[in-house]
Amino acid sequence: MTVLILTSEEDVTADMVVLRLREARVPVVRFDPADLTDGVALSGEYAHGTCHGQLSVGGRLVELDGLRSIWVRRPGTAAVRAAQPSAWLTEESAQALYGMLRCTGARWMNHPDAARRARYKPWQLRHAQRSELMVPATLITTFPQAAQEFAERHPDLVVKPVSGAHPQEPPRAVPTSRVAPDADFSAVAFGPTLLQERVVKQADIRLTAVGGTLLAARKPVNPDAHPDDVDVRFAPSVSPWRPVAVPGWVADGVLRYLRGAELAYGAFDFAEDADGVWWFLECNQSGQFGFVEMDTGQPIAATIAEWLAADGLPEDGCANAATGAGC
Amino acid sequence: MTVLILTSEEDVTADMVVLRLREARVPVVRFDPADLTDGVALSGEYAHGTCHGQLSVGGRLVELDGLRSIWVRRPGTAAVRAAQPSAWLTEESAQALYGMLRCTGARWMNHPDAARRARYKPWQLRHAQRSELMVPATLITTFPQAAQEFAERHPDLVVKPVSGAHPQEPPRAVPTSRVAPDADFSAVAFGPTLLQERVVKQADIRLTAVGGTLLAARKPVNPDAHPDDVDVRFAPSVSPWRPVAVPGWVADGVLRYLRGAELAYGAFDFAEDADGVWWFLECNQSGQFGFVEMDTGQPIAATIAEWLAADGLPEDGCANAATGAGC
Repeated sequence: MTVLILTSEEDVTADMVVLRLREARVPVVRFDPADLTDGVALSGEYAHGTCHGQLSVGGRLVELDGLRSIWVRRPGTAAVRAAQPSAWLTEESAQALYGMLRCTGARWMNHPDAARRARYKPWQLRHAQRSELMVPATLITTFPQAAQEFAERHPDLVVKPVSGAHPQEPPRAVPTSRVAPDADFSAVAFGPTLLQERVVKQADIRLTAVGGTLLAARKPVNPDAHPDDVDVRFAPSVSPWRPVAVPGWVADGVLRYLRGAELAYGAFDFAEDADGVWWFLECNQSGQFGFVEMDTGQPIAATIAEWLAADGLPEDGCANAATGAGC
Repeated sequence: MTVLILTSEEDVTADMVVLRLREARVPVVRFDPADLTDGVALSGEYAHGTCHGQLSVGGRLVELDGLRSIWVRRPGTAAVRAAQPSAWLTEESAQALYGMLRCTGARWMNHPDAARRARYKPWQLRHAQRSELMVPATLITTFPQAAQEFAERHPDLVVKPVSGAHPQEPPRAVPTSRVAPDADFSAVAFGPTLLQERVVKQADIRLTAVGGTLLAARKPVNPDAHPDDVDVRFAPSVSPWRPVAVPGWVADGVLRYLRGAELAYGAFDFAEDADGVWWFLECNQSGQFGFVEMDTGQPIAATIAEWLAADGLPEDGCANAATGAGC
């Protein structure tokens, strides 16, 4: 049984996982859907109530029925590197590839439907609440009056994008920023705005979840930091990430979140307040983990490799139960 | 409890359903996401483990918790008619709108995740097989040799796009065409090709499924038709669509298909062969129904209105069971 990895050619994080799989002598096929139909070919035949498919990658033939798991890491847009690329060829190639992969019994990290749903920030916040994680008071609105009233009730606010990254090539991260006390909210009417009560944090937490395995890392806030430096991605850093134990109630909530979201992988960001409470900020279903592994030595790549190589459903049973329901 | 309809301003098919809902005195809100944030506003507040949201459409305020059902008919791209449209505003607006709607308890026709999955033709064919519908022998391939061998085993073939419509503005339908007996399949290597055994048909069947209600219509093949006229959308027509009873085994298969696909609505195309067997060609989860209702007088719009207005899950329980699992 083979592990399929969909990612770009240059992906050192994927390299780490491939290395672990090779050490464990697990067959791996890796390619970038951008290389369809040049070097990557596929075929599926439907007859007499059955379906039988193959992938050919660099001349190596793989039976689709023989796929154990599929890691959707950082795949390129289908067929963009074909000899004669077009929107039509991309659409046809994506439909053929992902349509056929959806028919296999392979386990996904993460299933494309679960991945897509998990990107909706309004859904994330609601799902985190329902998973009994702590969520800071948040408003998403295009009503200036609602924003004004929210700011009066919660005078210390940050603003962030609803959708995450700015849609550019390459995508640009938009930092979370503090809202000035006398802010004018009239521009809210022109586009949805996400306002959130600022957590006065003593540390940032990155919790990487792989199946039922939770690996958390903590980075204390620089004591000299300016209160406006709310976004750990952009704040000057003095301390490295260090492993930290996950409080029981957070572990329970995270496992509920993953199960409900049908995710096999998730990178959770929390803010730890002065009382040690972890506040849910977001869960990125394709979040990077290389920088955490580098700082902490936590075996994230090895855990992903183990999950991909395992037989059957992971022990927590959280992956793809419903998204595969019809297939 | 309100019915929400997402569609473009000019949509006579939606008008038919709105008329029925108004007759039944069911509150309806209709808008095009293209009109965000001009005339349409939204807001959602998360606090103390709960979420509370509103939509404002043309000055009318609707509580998101008060939505009974959501009909995703023909919505435009979010915020494209805003005063200053941009890819960023579209992304933010789509995330905010659909992210919040995903958090409601409303029933969907169809849920966006189910709709997206249902568009994958390779998945449709496999799902139809698993639902015990009859599927003509089909090959989707980029291997010229596989195409050649398939054509030798099945000398009477048609070719169609994998993805359905051509990605243009407006989208252009690509007709299903017969494959010449001496076809050269070398070009298959440059893009996925769908080859299917031609059903020698005596009639086309359009089966419109609304929840558990199946309304089928039949159009006999013109006896003078050329065998190359395989695509009913493009063939010259002499007979109108007429209502027809659904064979028991087809009804069972279609209901299994809908349940597994988590679809509340589906427009199924079948080809009826000389023995009266209905062969599954495709299921379009957003297929038009106006032309069938016009020819047959079947109450499709009224059935959709009833489904949208109903309380709780439809009797067959097929809608949104799993896609709503985490929400």
